Amino acid sequence: MKLIKAAVIGASGYSGEELVRRLLHHPHVELTAVTSRQQAGQTLAQVFPKFAGHPKSKTLRFCEPNAELLAKQAEIVFLALPHGVAAEFAVPLLRLGCRVIDLSADFRLKSAEVYKEFYAHDHPAPELLARSVYGLPEVYRDAIKGASLIASPGCYPTSILLPVLPLLRAKLIKPQGIIADSLSGVSGAGRKAEVDYLFVECNESVRPYGVPKHRHLSEIEEQLSLAAGSPVTIQFTPHLIPVNRGILTTLYLAPEKHFASAAEAAALHEKITACYQSAYANEPFVRLLDGPALPDTKNVAGTNVIEIAWRLDPRTGRLVVMSAEDNIVKGASGQALQSMNILCGFPETAGLV
Amino acid sequence: MKLIKAAVIGASGYSGEELVRRLLHHPHVELTAVTSRQQAGQTLAQVFPKFAGHPKSKTLRFCEPNAELLAKQAEIVFLALPHGVAAEFAVPLLRLGCRVIDLSADFRLKSAEVYKEFYAHDHPAPELLARSVYGLPEVYRDAIKGASLIASPGCYPTSILLPVLPLLRAKLIKPQGIIADSLSGVSGAGRKAEVDYLFVECNESVRPYGVPKHRHLSEIEEQLSLAAGSPVTIQFTPHLIPVNRGILTTLYLAPEKHFASAAEAAALHEKITACYQSAYANEPFVRLLDGPALPDTKNVAGTNVIEIAWRLDPRTGRLVVMSAEDNIVKGASGQALQSMNILCGFPETAGLV
Amino acid sequence: MKLIKAAVIGASGYSGEELVRRLLHHPHVELTAVTSRQQAGQTLAQVFPKFAGHPKSKTLRFCEPNAELLAKQAEIVFLALPHGVAAEFAVPLLRLGCRVIDLSADFRLKSAEVYKEFYAHDHPAPELLARSVYGLPEVYRDAIKGASLIASPGCYPTSILLPVLPLLRAKLIKPQGIIADSLSGVSGAGRKAEVDYLFVECNESVRPYGVPKHRHLSEIEEQLSLAAGSPVTIQFTPHLIPVNRGILTTLYLAPEKHFASAAEAAALHEKITACYQSAYANEPFVRLLDGPALPDTKNVAGTNVIEIAWRLDPRTGRLVVMSAEDNIVKGASGQALQSMNILCGFPETAGLV
Amino acid sequence: MKLIKAAVIGASGYSGEELVRRLLHHPHVELTAVTSRQQAGQTLAQVFPKFAGHPKSKTLRFCEPNAELLAKQAEIVFLALPHGVAAEFAVPLLRLGCRVIDLSADFRLKSAEVYKEFYAHDHPAPELLARSVYGLPEVYRDAIKGASLIASPGCYPTSILLPVLPLLRAKLIKPQGIIADSLSGVSGAGRKAEVDYLFVECNESVRPYGVPKHRHLSEIEEQLSLAAGSPVTIQFTPHLIPVNRGILTTLYLAPEKHFASAAEAAALHEKITACYQSAYANEPFVRLLDGPALPDTKNVAGTNVIEIAWRLDPRTGRLVVMSAEDNIVKGASGQALQSMNILCGFPETAGLV
Repeated sequence: MKLIKAAVIGASGYSGEELVRRLLHHPHVELTAVTSRQQAGQTLAQVFPKFAGHPKSKTLRFCEPNAELLAKQAEIVFLALPHGVAAEFAVPLLRLGCRVIDLSADFRLKSAEVYKEFYAHDHPAPELLARSVYGLPEVYRDAIKGASLIASPGCYPTSILLPVLPLLRAKLIKPQGIIADSLSGVSGAGRKAEVDYLFVECNESVRPYGVPKHRHLSEIEEQLSLAAGSPVTIQFTPHLIPVNRGILTTLYLAPEKHFASAAEAAALHEKITACYQSAYANEPFVRLLDGPALPDTKNVAGTNVIEIAWRLDPRTGRLVVMSAEDNIVKGASGQALQSMNILCGFPETAGLV
Repeated sequence: MKLIKAAVIGASGYSGEELVRRLLHHPHVELTAVTSRQQAGQTLAQVFPKFAGHPKSKTLRFCEPNAELLAKQAEIVFLALPHGVAAEFAVPLLRLGCRVIDLSADFRLKSAEVYKEFYAHDHPAPELLARSVYGLPEVYRDAIKGASLIASPGCYPTSILLPVLPLLRAKLIKPQGIIADSLSGVSGAGRKAEVDYLFVECNESVRPYGVPKHRHLSEIEEQLSLAAGSPVTIQFTPHLIPVNRGILTTLYLAPEKHFASAAEAAALHEKITACYQSAYANEPFVRLLDGPALPDTKNVAGTNVIEIAWRLDPRTGRLVVMSAEDNIVKGASGQALQSMNILCGFPETAGLV
Repeated sequence: MKLIKAAVIGASGYSGEELVRRLLHHPHVELTAVTSRQQAGQTLAQVFPKFAGHPKSKTLRFCEPNAELLAKQAEIVFLALPHGVAAEFAVPLLRLGCRVIDLSADFRLKSAEVYKEFYAHDHPAPELLARSVYGLPEVYRDAIKGASLIASPGCYPTSILLPVLPLLRAKLIKPQGIIADSLSGVSGAGRKAEVDYLFVECNESVRPYGVPKHRHLSEIEEQLSLAAGSPVTIQFTPHLIPVNRGILTTLYLAPEKHFASAAEAAALHEKITACYQSAYANEPFVRLLDGPALPDTKNVAGTNVIEIAWRLDPRTGRLVVMSAEDNIVKGASGQALQSMNILCGFPETAGLV
Repeated sequence: MKLIKAAVIGASGYSGEELVRRLLHHPHVELTAVTSRQQAGQTLAQVFPKFAGHPKSKTLRFCEPNAELLAKQAEIVFLALPHGVAAEFAVPLLRLGCRVIDLSADFRLKSAEVYKEFYAHDHPAPELLARSVYGLPEVYRDAIKGASLIASPGCYPTSILLPVLPLLRAKLIKPQGIIADSLSGVSGAGRKAEVDYLFVECNESVRPYGVPKHRHLSEIEEQLSLAAGSPVTIQFTPHLIPVNRGILTTLYLAPEKHFASAAEAAALHEKITACYQSAYANEPFVRLLDGPALPDTKNVAGTNVIEIAWRLDPRTGRLVVMSAEDNIVKGASGQALQSMNILCGFPETAGLV
C-alpha cells in the first residue's frame, strides 16, 4: 500500500509528541514534516531523545509552520495548536487541498455564537463550522470517511460522551440533571511553563478548577443535545490530580424508568448492559466492564482504549457510570489517528496497538 | 497545669502514628502507653525513627493491648483499631473509668440495625450506642464536654458533613438528591500489606471503589437526617488517588430557592456565605474560601484544617460545594485530639498547630 | 513463518505481566500457557483487564505450573519466578526438551559457591550452571543462538554491565575501585504484599537499602571479572525511589590513563566515545548520548532501550558514566524476549518496538 | 521576652514560604515585613491560603524590597533571593545596622576568585566575604553567636558536610577521592516557571544533572579543605528525583586505616561511631542511626533533622556514609532559623519542632 504523507503542526507539545511517536511507526503513513516555533531547526532526535532509535529522527527537522510549504509536503495535516491559532492554519491548508485533523477546539462546535460565549473571541473562520466533522469515530464514523476537516474531540468530552450518548439515544436516561465529575492528569495542561503545573505544585495536591463553567461544556452539551433531540445542560467539574496521564469521569444519571424492587433494578441493569453492548461490543477501543471491575486509569494509560462501567443504586434511584481513558491518547492524539485511519481507509487500529 | 495521662491502642497504623506524634508534643498531655500486637516490645524510636528526637521515644515501648493495665496508666484512651475490634476495648475501659475516644466506626451510629446493615455483623456493644457522642466538635462541642465515650467521625463523613450541615439546618438546600464525590489519598487504606495499595498499583492510577454503597454512608446519612429532621439518602462515590494525604470532596446540592436572574443568584450566594460565616467564622479549623480560591489538599495536608468553597451555577440551578482536608488529621487523629481538648478543658487548638 | 509456542511460568508478577503483554503481540510467537498459583483458573482478561482487547485474553486461563504439561504446550518456557524456585522447573523442562529462559538469578552464576554465598542456600541444580548462557545479547549474542538455558540478567547488572564492559575490555579503565550507585523504581520489588512497598511508604521517600552487599553483586562481579581477566570487586549501592519503572545508575570509574591538560582530556574522551561506538553503534537497544543530554528514565520507560552518557572530570581525574533503563523491560522481560528472538532466529527487535 | 522583629526578602519562593511559616509561629519573633516583586500588595493569606489561620496573614502585605524601609521594620533580615541578587540587599542592610541571614550563595565562600569561577560573574561585594560566617551551626556555633552576616549553607553542602567533617577532622578518612552522590527533590529547583520542572517532566523521571561541576562544589570543597588542612577536591553528582522534599546523599569514603579482618573492621566501626557520637550526640538536629536503619527522606521531611548512617565494606575497604535531610528545612530555611536562634540567644530549637 502506498504511504500517505502526513505533517504535524505544533509537534512539541504533549499531544504533538504522541502524534509523532505513533506516526513514526504507523504502517501506512510517512511523517514528512513537524513544526514548532521554539524548536525550529532541531532534529526530532534532539528534541525527543526517546525517538532517537527511529531512522527518521536524525533527518527530520522541526520547521516554522508555513501552510504553503506544508501543503506540498503532506496530504494530511494534524493541528496540535492552541484554540484560536489552529483556524489560521486550517483555512489555507484546506484551500490548498489538504485534509486537516484539528486537535484544538476551533471546529468542534456548530455555532459561532456558542464558540464566542465559551472562548471569549469571535470565531476565526465561521464559514468552516458547517463543513467540519466531530471526530468521535464511535459516533461519526461514516461522516469521518468523507471529511476534509475533522475536529477531534476534547479529552473531557470524550470521557463523558462515549458513556452517555448510547443511554441518551436509547432514552434510558433523562437528559436533564446530568452531572459529570472528572479527574485529569497534569499532561492535560500542556507542556507550558506555568508555576501552577510545576511538580511541587501538583504533587500531593488534588484540586477542582474551572468551576462551574469550563470551556469543554460547549462541545459536550452540543453533542448531548443532538443525541437527546433537545437542549441539554449539564453540571461538569474538572479536577487536577497528580498523574501524568489519564482522565477518570464519574457520571450521575437519572434513569427514565423508576426502579424500586430488586427485580426492577436487575431488569433495568440488563437493558443498560444491552444498550452498551449494542453500541460498543464491536468497537476496538471501548472496553465495557460488565463484571465486578471498575475503571482505572492505569489500565488504559498509553492506549487508545476507554473503559466504561455502570452501577444502579437502588437506594437513590440513580445510575452511576464511570469511564477511564488516557487523556493524550483516546482523549487527543490516538483518537485523531483513529479518525485518520477511517478517513484514509486504513484498518482502524493501525498504529494504535 | 497538671498533665493528663493518655494511651493509644493500635499505635502503629497511620492514625495511631499521627496521634502519637501530636501527643508527644501536646502541652497538657503525657503519653503513657502505646500498644501494637506486631510491635510489642519495641521502643517508639525503633518503630518510628522520626520520633527519635523526643526523649520519651527511647523509653516508651509498645505493649500488647490490655484494658486492665491501660486503665491504670491512662485517663484518656484512644482506640485506633479496626471496626469491630474497638468495641472489645471500649467496654472494659469505660467500666474501669477511662474516657475513651474511638477512631473506629463502632460507636458512630445510634442504630445497631444500621450498623449491622453496613458492617455485616451484630454490633458488639449496642448498650453503649446511646452513650457515645459523635465527635464532630463544630457540631457537638457541648456534648463532647461531658462525654465518656467519643466516636470520632470518619474521614469521608467529616469532609461531607461540615460543608453540608449548616446549609441543611438553614434550609438553604433540599435534603433530597445530595451527591458527594470524594477523592482520597492512599493513607486512608491503612498501613496494611495488600497488593492493591502497593506503590506501583496506586501511582499513575485513579479509580473509584465501593460504588454505590460505601460503609461511611451510614454515619453520613444519620447525621444529615438529624440535621434535616427527616431521613436523608445520598449518593456517595469514593475514589483512590495517588497522594499520601488528603480528601477532596465535591458536593452537588439543590438550593431550596430557585434562582434565575443574576440578581437572584447574587442574593442566594450572599445567604449561603452568611450561613457559612455564621456557622464557622469563629471555628479555628474551618477555612472558608470566599474569594476566587478553590480548595486544594496541599493547603491542608499536615493540618487540622478543612477548607470549604462554594459556587452557584446559574446554568443548572445547582450549588457546588467543595472541601479539602487531611484525611489523617481533620479526618481522624487531629479531630480526635480536638475532641480531647474540649473534653479536658484545654484550649481547643492545643497540640494542633 | 510458523509461530513458536511459548509459555510463561509465574505470569502474574510485574515481569510476567510484561512478558505476557509483549508475547500476545509478538509476530512470531503464540502464547499457549500462563501459570500462577494464586490466579489459577482465571482468564488473562480477568487478571489483567488491560489485556482484554486481545482475543486470547478471554480463552487463555492461568493454570498451576506443571512441567510435564507445559512441555507439551510450549517449545520456549519463560520462568518469571523467585530465586530458588526457578531451578525446580528448569530441570524437568530442559529434560523434556524445552528451551528455558529464566529471569531469576538461579543460572546467572558459573560458581555454585558464589551462589551459596550470596543467596544463602545450596544451588538447587549445580550441574546446569555450565550449560546456561548469560542472556546479555550485546555481549553473548553468539552463545545465545544455540542455548537451551538462558539466564536473563538482573536489572541492576544490566544497567552496570553494558556501560562498563566495553571500557574494561578496551582497558580504558582500571578494574579496581569501580563504584555503582543505582536508583530503582518500586516495581523492582515485585508485586508482593509488603508494608515497605505500600504507596504511602514509598511516595515522598528516597532510601538506600542492601548496603553494602546486595545479591546482584555476584553476577555483576563475575561478568566484570571475565571481561577484565582478573577478579573484580565493586562498590554497589541500590536506592529505592518513587517511580514505577526505571533504573538510573551512576558509575564512578578510574581511567587507566591519567589526563591533566584539556587536550589530554579531549583525546581520552574521544577514545571512550570511539570505544562505545565500536561496541554499540549498531545495537538496536543501546542509545549512546554523545551530545549534551544526560540519561533520564522517562526517556526509556516502557522500552527495551538503555541510554548511556559519559563525562570526564578533569578536576578529579575520574570518568563518570550514567545509564538509564526500564528495570522491567531492558532490565528483565524485554531483554529476555530479545534473547528469545536471537535464539529463534527472529529479527532481534520483533515484539520490542 | 521581648520579640525580635524579622523580615524576609523574597518570601514567595519555597525557602521564603518555609521561613514565613516558621517565623509566624516562632515564640520569640515578630514577622514585620515580607517582600516579593510579583506579589507586592497582596496579603500573606492571599498568596498562601494555608497561612490564613494566622491573625497576621490578613494584615501583613507583601511589599517591594527596599533596604531603607526594611531596616526600620526589622532587626533581622532573611534574604531568600537568587545568587547575585542577595548581595545587593546585604550591603545596605548591614550598613543600616541589620543582622542579615542570607540563604543564597553570595557570602558562603571566602574567595572572590572561586566565586567567579563557579558563579561566572564578579563577586558583587567582595569586601564582605571576610566578615560573613558560614551558618552551619553544628560547626560554627560560636562564630554565629556574634555574626552580623550569616551565609546559610546550601542544601547539598549541608547533606555532605555534616557527615564528612567529623571524620575528616578526626583523620579517620583520607581527604582524597571523596565521592558524593546526591538525590534531590524538585523543590530544590525553586518556584519558577520552567518546563524542566513541570509535573509531567519530573514525575516518573530520574536524572542526573550538572555533571561534573555543580556550583555547590565550591562551598563544599572550601569547607572540607578547612577541616582537612589541605585542598580537597571531590566528585559530586546531583540527581533530580520525583519528591517534593528531601535530599539523600550517599558518600564513598576511604578510611585512613586499612582494615582486613572482621576484628579490624569492628574496631574501625567503633571508632567511627565514637567520632560521630562525640560530634553530634548532643546536637538536637542530627540523628545518628547506629542500628540497622538507613536514612529515608520521609523520616526527615518537614523537620530540621539530618539522619546519618555508616557502613564499612570489608569487600572493598571503603566506608559508605548516607545522609537524609529536608532540602528546604535543614538544607535551607530551618538551618537559617537555627542560626537566628543562636545569634539571638534563643533556645536553638525554638520554632523548629
